[in-house]
Amino acid sequence: MTDVKHMKWWGWGLEGVGFHWEDKPGFAPFVLKAVGLDLHTATAAGQPSFAGLTIAKSRATAAFTKKLTDIVGEANVTTDDMERVVHTYGKSLRDLVRIRGNDIKRTPDLVVYPNDEDDVQRIVEAAVAENAVLIPFGGGSNIAGSLEPLAGEKRVVISLDLGLLNQVLDIDADSGLARIQAGALGPDLEEQLGRKGWTLGHFPDSFTHSTLGGWVATRSSGMQSDKYGDIADIAKGLRVARPDGMLVIRAIPSSSTGPSVREMILGSEGRLGVITEVTVQVHRIPAKRDIYAYFFPTWAAGLRAMQAIAESDATPSITRISDANETGFSLATSKESKGFSKFVTGTVLPTIFKLKRWNLDEICLSFIGYEGGDAHAKRQKKLVDAIVKKHGGMGVGTSPGILYDQKKFDTPYLRDFLLDRGAAGDVSESAAPWSKLAGLHDGVFAAAQAAYKKIGIDGWIMSHMSHSYHSGACLYFTFAFVMGKDPLGEYDIVKSAIQQAFQDNGGSLSHHHGVGLEHQPWMDQDISAPGVAVMQGLLDSADPKRNFNPGKITGN
Amino acid sequence: MTDVKHMKWWGWGLEGVGFHWEDKPGFAPFVLKAVGLDLHTATAAGQPSFAGLTIAKSRATAAFTKKLTDIVGEANVTTDDMERVVHTYGKSLRDLVRIRGNDIKRTPDLVVYPNDEDDVQRIVEAAVAENAVLIPFGGGSNIAGSLEPLAGEKRVVISLDLGLLNQVLDIDADSGLARIQAGALGPDLEEQLGRKGWTLGHFPDSFTHSTLGGWVATRSSGMQSDKYGDIADIAKGLRVARPDGMLVIRAIPSSSTGPSVREMILGSEGRLGVITEVTVQVHRIPAKRDIYAYFFPTWAAGLRAMQAIAESDATPSITRISDANETGFSLATSKESKGFSKFVTGTVLPTIFKLKRWNLDEICLSFIGYEGGDAHAKRQKKLVDAIVKKHGGMGVGTSPGILYDQKKFDTPYLRDFLLDRGAAGDVSESAAPWSKLAGLHDGVFAAAQAAYKKIGIDGWIMSHMSHSYHSGACLYFTFAFVMGKDPLGEYDIVKSAIQQAFQDNGGSLSHHHGVGLEHQPWMDQDISAPGVAVMQGLLDSADPKRNFNPGKITGN
Repeated sequence: MTDVKHMKWWGWGLEGVGFHWEDKPGFAPFVLKAVGLDLHTATAAGQPSFAGLTIAKSRATAAFTKKLTDIVGEANVTTDDMERVVHTYGKSLRDLVRIRGNDIKRTPDLVVYPNDEDDVQRIVEAAVAENAVLIPFGGGSNIAGSLEPLAGEKRVVISLDLGLLNQVLDIDADSGLARIQAGALGPDLEEQLGRKGWTLGHFPDSFTHSTLGGWVATRSSGMQSDKYGDIADIAKGLRVARPDGMLVIRAIPSSSTGPSVREMILGSEGRLGVITEVTVQVHRIPAKRDIYAYFFPTWAAGLRAMQAIAESDATPSITRISDANETGFSLATSKESKGFSKFVTGTVLPTIFKLKRWNLDEICLSFIGYEGGDAHAKRQKKLVDAIVKKHGGMGVGTSPGILYDQKKFDTPYLRDFLLDRGAAGDVSESAAPWSKLAGLHDGVFAAAQAAYKKIGIDGWIMSHMSHSYHSGACLYFTFAFVMGKDPLGEYDIVKSAIQQAFQDNGGSLSHHHGVGLEHQPWMDQDISAPGVAVMQGLLDSADPKRNFNPGKITGN
Repeated sequence: MTDVKHMKWWGWGLEGVGFHWEDKPGFAPFVLKAVGLDLHTATAAGQPSFAGLTIAKSRATAAFTKKLTDIVGEANVTTDDMERVVHTYGKSLRDLVRIRGNDIKRTPDLVVYPNDEDDVQRIVEAAVAENAVLIPFGGGSNIAGSLEPLAGEKRVVISLDLGLLNQVLDIDADSGLARIQAGALGPDLEEQLGRKGWTLGHFPDSFTHSTLGGWVATRSSGMQSDKYGDIADIAKGLRVARPDGMLVIRAIPSSSTGPSVREMILGSEGRLGVITEVTVQVHRIPAKRDIYAYFFPTWAAGLRAMQAIAESDATPSITRISDANETGFSLATSKESKGFSKFVTGTVLPTIFKLKRWNLDEICLSFIGYEGGDAHAKRQKKLVDAIVKKHGGMGVGTSPGILYDQKKFDTPYLRDFLLDRGAAGDVSESAAPWSKLAGLHDGVFAAAQAAYKKIGIDGWIMSHMSHSYHSGACLYFTFAFVMGKDPLGEYDIVKSAIQQAFQDNGGSLSHHHGVGLEHQPWMDQDISAPGVAVMQGLLDSADPKRNFNPGKITGN
């Protein structure tokens, strides 16, 4: 068999890696207060039994399987149950609850690992000839329901795992353009680029377990997007296997060639073909890559400061601020020995906060990044510091930023930790103009609280602002509650209330996680019914027999 | 009748405005050398006779005309011959040669001026019900053949002139977002924004005679795009009248909602409906808006400097460099009294050039812009100056930049001046990665010279690089030749050779002028046949009866 590694079938990340709270003294009290879960008495569910899963037999015929093995080789086609289960869902809360609860309505019938682009092209042709369904698979980290086969799908379903296409093929050093295979995971490609002094600069929270192709297919955005752009800005050239051959968008910096086919592929979630290669803009690893922390007395003051930075001449690489709830969470998840909870709860900062008459329940923690040459980073910090000061904030150096940078990819493990102990946690994010962000934040909070009240549970919600643009930014919400008798029913009520609040308060249904099955109900509100109709026309005309990840994004 | 002003029917710009060479001593010798035209003996064709044009009768029935007048009022529907002729073509060389030569195969049957968005929506519905053809018209400055009705069109053709929709409706000051009607011309909207301290920052060469809707429909790019972005970056929200109602894309800074419908409307050239309103990001008018001039000893050195600037931490608003031919042209079109030709040909600079051992036939003129606060502009200039110096260039202050800024919108008048005297001139532009720009430049020059040889004419070509991106830039070519017996046949040979050289040397078929009818032959090479097929599917599904500017972009 191939040696493509996957996340564990019942949760996030690698076997043996998990979240630990014993060294974080503030965590248990925080969780008790936030969702009413007592970690000292809670018992953790063990790893669920794979043998207990009900997995339908593969529908792939021997003849079709042979066709595929003729293309990729026998080792690269499998109907193994574990492989099929691993490729059934992404990693949303809904996905984890279902897989742990043996709720598997449809698995892929085959998992296929193409060796190269030519294999992909031939598989695409074979799948269409067979009228099979093809679902491209990258790192499997999707949380919008973009990966699962439709429950009622009668045709053979292939999960096309791009894991073997993980190479940086070429770097055009003059142009800062790298040709990279779509199956490359974040760490793989950064390592290959880094060896030659380059960086992609794209660091989404899923970085360790998501791929370039997946980022393009869902319009991903990374931590440093203020500097490097979203993946929609970064991905200049695309190669996509289509039934009529390779669709090739060359890496032109900008062009005027009708409606942008590049931007049709971006966000297409597998519905327009299989992305095999992306030419991305890369940057020389900068001399400075610093993250500084700041505190603001209130969320309102911090948000106004972020807006002022976006309007200014300053060009930081990260502008991020947590609201008071998330600031409390950050302090609670810090390790005692080296964490900045001690920094805050020790003697120095509280004294300063007291002198400033700041309310500890209202303070907000912000991270701002500076990248580039020494002088440039210094200059940007100087510009930002002045704006922070004007808005009543104070800088506290790089130590918290370093910690943040180190643990930024670990949050999903915490979600699994809570799930093991009966608490559901998930995230959803939106983007809106600056003028609407404060209202969006409050509207979502109110909607979540109303939903919690409806299901009779004391739930939690917190948020941060990140990904600044000239005209607005992203608000990223994390919510959690102790599950009752109907976890998915309760989850639906809370998640739907949050999504509807996005629309009601001028936000988008997603900033960088995609639509999948999860966010379809809000598409009409988001881009208008005529907008969805235009998109549907595109999908129908490009895939008349619905062979490519059918049902995702629009539902049809 | 409505009071919407148009450019003159036989050429660019306003009646009574034209190019004059008498005060530019270098111009006549330059033209003689470049294309063999002696201005001292050349006789100018007078204004062509409108009465001499052969204009087919309008096919609009009285019943359908009444339907339209019921919507917009009697004053806003016309079958007047002059109005129909003005709305027949854009302003490409091909357009001007045809209109001056009474070569009009098809004019619109009616010109309609909607009063508001509601009118547009009702006209769209009426046109589809009647199976008529609708061609949206902005400023009429298009040079890609995007405006003309297809020669064989049997149905009623409406030119929908958005001239009355010219208002800035609202400014969201917090977000830097302005809602502007699609028919607003550049000067109109800058004036309305400027009154409140804002600027759009979008200044294409066509600025004075092109509209916001036209910019969006063709994916326009302006002079200061390095800072403000292309119109594709600037246009955040869109309202488009479609047969099933208004398609509304809200002004979200960035989102993940499937294939981008916003980016399908951008560049759609009227084929997906009628753009009625655009929400654009606007900026506070900066304290500094300076353009500095620099000289480089050679094109190669200058191009390398521009590339180094794009890779650096510096963020100028304009980076532009003319090749040696265009530098010669710029010097030749300067006025003796205040022009910088004197500056260059006087005593100071030639002495410096001589000391530096620069060849006057090889020097290249560059303009670099700095915008923002005083300190920011100063800092950017310092960063750029260091890079310029490293690449052997020298700064010569702001005087040439001020002149450039004043005359940048006048070039099309020069084209008409030459055409009056028997010389064809036109432009075409491409974008490519930095690594390919030098080769693209030389490849296009060689192709143009081969084409000139083929038609037995000594022609001229010159170029500048502008619109810098991290991974590449735009090369903008201007070519001219004295017309022989078959002007359009000769033009086709030269223009086609240039367009093919774009493809052969890694460039796009257009950077910001669109596709129209003019650039269709290169679509397959540019975005691949499967890419064109996906686009065609979109167009067909969105407009099954081909009512919206049919035949443009893809030919089908």
